[in-house]
Amino acid sequence: MKKRVLSGMRPTGKLHLGNFLGALDNWKKIQEEDAFFMIADWHALTTEYESHSEIRNNVIEVVLDYLAGGLDPEKCTIFVQSQVKEHAELALLLSMMTPLSWLERNPTYKDQIQELKGKDLHTHGFLGYPVLQAADILLYKADFVPVGEDQLPHLELTREIARRFNHLYGEVFPEPQAMLTQVKKLPGTDGRKMSKSYNNCIYMSDSPEEVEKKIKGMVTDPQRKRRDDPGDPEVCPVFYYQKIFNSDLIPSIEQGCRSAELGCVDDKKSLMKELNKFLEPVYEKRKELEKDKGKIADILEEGAKRARVIASATLQEAKEKVGI
Amino acid sequence: MKKRVLSGMRPTGKLHLGNFLGALDNWKKIQEEDAFFMIADWHALTTEYESHSEIRNNVIEVVLDYLAGGLDPEKCTIFVQSQVKEHAELALLLSMMTPLSWLERNPTYKDQIQELKGKDLHTHGFLGYPVLQAADILLYKADFVPVGEDQLPHLELTREIARRFNHLYGEVFPEPQAMLTQVKKLPGTDGRKMSKSYNNCIYMSDSPEEVEKKIKGMVTDPQRKRRDDPGDPEVCPVFYYQKIFNSDLIPSIEQGCRSAELGCVDDKKSLMKELNKFLEPVYEKRKELEKDKGKIADILEEGAKRARVIASATLQEAKEKVGI
Repeated sequence: MKKRVLSGMRPTGKLHLGNFLGALDNWKKIQEEDAFFMIADWHALTTEYESHSEIRNNVIEVVLDYLAGGLDPEKCTIFVQSQVKEHAELALLLSMMTPLSWLERNPTYKDQIQELKGKDLHTHGFLGYPVLQAADILLYKADFVPVGEDQLPHLELTREIARRFNHLYGEVFPEPQAMLTQVKKLPGTDGRKMSKSYNNCIYMSDSPEEVEKKIKGMVTDPQRKRRDDPGDPEVCPVFYYQKIFNSDLIPSIEQGCRSAELGCVDDKKSLMKELNKFLEPVYEKRKELEKDKGKIADILEEGAKRARVIASATLQEAKEKVGI
Repeated sequence: MKKRVLSGMRPTGKLHLGNFLGALDNWKKIQEEDAFFMIADWHALTTEYESHSEIRNNVIEVVLDYLAGGLDPEKCTIFVQSQVKEHAELALLLSMMTPLSWLERNPTYKDQIQELKGKDLHTHGFLGYPVLQAADILLYKADFVPVGEDQLPHLELTREIARRFNHLYGEVFPEPQAMLTQVKKLPGTDGRKMSKSYNNCIYMSDSPEEVEKKIKGMVTDPQRKRRDDPGDPEVCPVFYYQKIFNSDLIPSIEQGCRSAELGCVDDKKSLMKELNKFLEPVYEKRKELEKDKGKIADILEEGAKRARVIASATLQEAKEKVGI
């Protein structure tokens, strides 16, 4: 029997290659299960409540990337969190029995307040985002949630909330299991972490020309100043990319770089070719999809409808047990 | 033009005479406005999440008392909070921008945690109940909220949340005004505060025989040990009741008590008569209503339907402004 899997992303805008490889590429396999992919616009608000104007547009960008990247709405359910009212209702229900101490000790909570210093995150909503996350997962009685190692504490909090509910009111929620995902780490074009705020991203929506331009501008081994200097591939971001997109040629690329037989320009050219082989179909498909925004709305409407069937049944069951 | 007014009660069970005089009697006048009366079952959960099994039954008891006490569902809208999903959604939306410090400094929060020591109220839901309360009021864009003096800080918090929302996202919520209500304080039959937990209540649903029995057992001036001792009406709970239910005779009752012309037994008899004149029609009406629980369900369904029309329009407007 197919396993129920739930995953989601915040609508932070167009997805980049890191998002693609880190999540979406994995989701393409997961969609063969009974999979629900959520665009978590409520979660975006927990941190972006003061700069919210892009959220709705970002939702569309993310869906375009999902579809261009290979998610098939005939196979999986793609929906927007706020379009399924039951998320808010179950979050409220679970918040009644979630101890503040569980939320306050959540390591990500303190980290993020530190990290996002420019934002005032001392809000009731931000403190409660693990409760909302628990509602997202438990509403679908998900068997599995694909997570990276670093998100395990979050999933554990969801499991604790499920246990507490079941203990107080009777068994409703199965405890979701982690589906640990191998994330292929991909640096940005400048060698730092790929991030919109560093302006070092390659986007799924970039045209082949943009991709070429960005690769051309990529940082390589900073010690290799001239064409005939030998290079160190281990410190070269381009080599990271090659390992993923040109894996067959890795031995010869490595040897060529170390011996200076292969120059950075040619190295980049071979990467461009392979990367565009990978990205051009995505770009083309996205171009097609962009022409018909009505279809995107239909897919989301259909997704929300499917999600609601399950979400409302679970919520009803939970409310019955609690007796409201 | 009629003013929009919202008020509500937690479904804590059958209403007693104190609730009747303190709130319901006032609501009977308010229902001539555009009035919404909510049975706040979500709020009951903020404190009763561990002893929740009575909530659903209590909702019915409260509605029976509302109707028996004179609310007319043709005039006003009576609904159950959890049956209008928009309360949960707006609460989630408002929680995103409500600073924790506003909630932590709420004086009732600390008081209640002290007062309800047997319960673990260190939960995300209990901390957030003023946010839920703000959602309840703002969802209907209420012009007025009937409140006692002691609830003014709560209403002020709702107004602050409304201002913050309007400031961040644009004008959606009018600031509700307080409709200060004069509460006639009524002690329990033992002279302490009338409270279910003291077992000293006269209920709206008590039969005339039960009322007589309870009045018979009432505490009077403890110094007046014998029939011909003079009494002090100021310390006598029966006299409190007389002031409300037998106000025309107050001078003669007072004089009779002080001079020992009037004995406690006769004093109580005259109160019984007047109190039952007041309560017997309520009791009879409630008996009638109890026979047709289906009608109660219909009234609540109709009330929720009417409430939803307004609540969903307001929520839509708020979500539009925020952009989710």
